[in-house]
Amino acid sequence: MNLLLAGDFDVAERDRWYGALAQAMPQHHLAVADELFDRTRVEVAIVANPQPGSLRGLPKLRLIQSLWAGVEGLLSDDSVPASVPIARMVDPALATAMGETALWAVLSLHRGFYAYARQQRQIRWRQLPQLRADELPITVLGLGTMGCACVHALAPHGYRITAWSRSDAPRDLPSGVAHIHGNDALFECLRGSSIVINLLPLTAATRGLLDARFFAAMPRGAALVNLARGAHVVEADLRAALATGRLGHAVLDVFEREPLDEKHPFWRHPRVTVLPHAAALTDPRSAAQLVAANVQALLDGQPIVNLIDRARGY
Amino acid sequence: MNLLLAGDFDVAERDRWYGALAQAMPQHHLAVADELFDRTRVEVAIVANPQPGSLRGLPKLRLIQSLWAGVEGLLSDDSVPASVPIARMVDPALATAMGETALWAVLSLHRGFYAYARQQRQIRWRQLPQLRADELPITVLGLGTMGCACVHALAPHGYRITAWSRSDAPRDLPSGVAHIHGNDALFECLRGSSIVINLLPLTAATRGLLDARFFAAMPRGAALVNLARGAHVVEADLRAALATGRLGHAVLDVFEREPLDEKHPFWRHPRVTVLPHAAALTDPRSAAQLVAANVQALLDGQPIVNLIDRARGY
Repeated sequence: MNLLLAGDFDVAERDRWYGALAQAMPQHHLAVADELFDRTRVEVAIVANPQPGSLRGLPKLRLIQSLWAGVEGLLSDDSVPASVPIARMVDPALATAMGETALWAVLSLHRGFYAYARQQRQIRWRQLPQLRADELPITVLGLGTMGCACVHALAPHGYRITAWSRSDAPRDLPSGVAHIHGNDALFECLRGSSIVINLLPLTAATRGLLDARFFAAMPRGAALVNLARGAHVVEADLRAALATGRLGHAVLDVFEREPLDEKHPFWRHPRVTVLPHAAALTDPRSAAQLVAANVQALLDGQPIVNLIDRARGY
Repeated sequence: MNLLLAGDFDVAERDRWYGALAQAMPQHHLAVADELFDRTRVEVAIVANPQPGSLRGLPKLRLIQSLWAGVEGLLSDDSVPASVPIARMVDPALATAMGETALWAVLSLHRGFYAYARQQRQIRWRQLPQLRADELPITVLGLGTMGCACVHALAPHGYRITAWSRSDAPRDLPSGVAHIHGNDALFECLRGSSIVINLLPLTAATRGLLDARFFAAMPRGAALVNLARGAHVVEADLRAALATGRLGHAVLDVFEREPLDEKHPFWRHPRVTVLPHAAALTDPRSAAQLVAANVQALLDGQPIVNLIDRARGY
C-alpha cells in the first residue's frame, strides 16, 4: 500500500516519525510530503497538522490518519475530501503523558511548588500552609480519552474530582469521581472549584467557553490548567482574571497563537506557567503500531479504529 | 495529666498547634514552654525541635512525644533524660505529603518541567523529548514510613523503582518494586539510576553517605532528590557534581544549615530546586489525634506507639 507522511515537523522529528513508521510497516511504501512523490498512488495520508491544501489532489486517498489527537485543523481545511474517513491518534503513551502533566500541575498548585519557585527567585525561606488533597476540589472539563487519563492519574491521590462532559460519563470512572453535564451544573460546580483542568475537544460549542463569566464563577484565587486548545480560552479575559486576583495561577500548555510570541505577557507573568504545547506528545514508537494496525484493517476490510465524527467535530 | 508544648514555632504556628492539641485533649492541662509553667508537674513533653536543654529539670517527665518524624536533635541533646521514652510522629498526613513531594519531583524531572521553567525564563519555546516512566530507573534510599509512602506514590505511575534499606523490606511493597540492601548492591544499583530519592533516617551510618564517591557512581546527568536531612549530603561534593554535569539537577528540601543562608549558591543555581524544608509538614489536625492516643495509652498502661530505639537512632 502507498502511504504519505505529511506534517509540520522539523527534520529531526520527521526522521523520527519516518523511522518508526517504516519499521512498523516494512511491507508498505512510505513517501514524505516535502519530497517528490506520486500523488496518484497515495492511499493513506499519515498527517500531523499538515499545511492547509496539502491533501488536495490525491485521487486514491482512502484514509487520513492523524498522528495527533486534535483534528480541528483537518476539519477546517476544505481541501480535505469530505468522503475520506479521518482517524485520530489515541496513543496510550499520549494519554499517560497527559495524566502525568495534569497530576504535576495539580501537585504543584496543591502543594505550593509554583509559589516555592517564586520564593527561590526571591531568596526567601518560608513554609506555606500544607493542605490535604481532599481540601482542593478539582473540576475536569471533558471526559474523552485525555480527560479520563487525567481523572485516573489524580483520583488515587485523594483529590475530590468532578468531571463535566457533554454526554454520559464513561463507565470506567474511578469511584468517588462525580459526573455532571449541562451548563447550569458546570457553573454551580465552578463556584466550589479550587482548580479547573481543561481537556475538552475544540468545537463550536466549546470555543471561547473559558471567558470572563466562567472565571467570575470560580472562587477568588483559584487556578486554571489548560491542556486542551488555546481557543477554548478568551485570552484577554484570562489576563484580566489574573490581574484582579480572581485567578491565582494559570498553567497553560496551549495558546491562541503558537508558538507564543516572545512579547506575550504570559512569558513573564509571575503567576503563569508556560509550557510549549508539550503536555503530551505522541510517542512515535507506540503510535506507529496503531497506524500500522489501522492500515492493516483498511487492507482487510476491517473497522478502522478511532474514526472521528465530522458532525460532532471529534 | 500535665502536658508541655515546646518547639521552635513562630507565634502563629504555636497557636495552631496549641489549638489542635487542646481540642484533641480537653481533659488534660497543656502548658507552653515560652510562658510560665510549673516544671515539677510536667508528665508529657510534646516537642518540635525544642531548644537544647529545655527538657532539663522535669522530674515527673514520663514521655517525650515529638511532633516531627526526625528526632536526631533530641538524641544529641544530652539534657534529655535517657530514661524517658521518646515517641516520634508518624502522622499519616506527613507520609502522604512526602509521597506527594517525591512524586512531584519525579514528574518534574521525568517530564522536563524544571527545564521548561528555565525555558520560560529565557522566553524559549521548544519541546523536549518525552520519555516513558519506565525509561527512568529510580532508586529510593530508605524504606521507613517515608520511603514506603514515596514508593507507593510512584509505583502506580509506572516508574521502575529499586528501594535500598538496611534491613529487610517491609511486606507491603507494591509489586514490581525491587529491594536491595548492602553497600555493594547500592553502588551497583546507582550505576543505572536516573533519579535517586533520599529518605533515610540520619544516623552515624548514613551521615555523609551522599558524597563524591556516591555521585561518581551515578550516570552522567542523573538527578538527586533529598527529602531527608541535609547532613546526608556532603554539600561541597554535591556542588562539584553539579558543576561537572555529573548531576543534572538536584531537588533539595534540606541543607547542612537551615534556613539556607541567603548567600548560598544553591538559591541561584539554575539546576537546583530549593524547598524550605517543606516536603512534608505534620498536619496539626491529624497529629493531635495521635498525640492524644499516646497520652491515653500512657494513662492506661498500654503500649506507646512509634517509640524510637535510641541505639538504632530512629
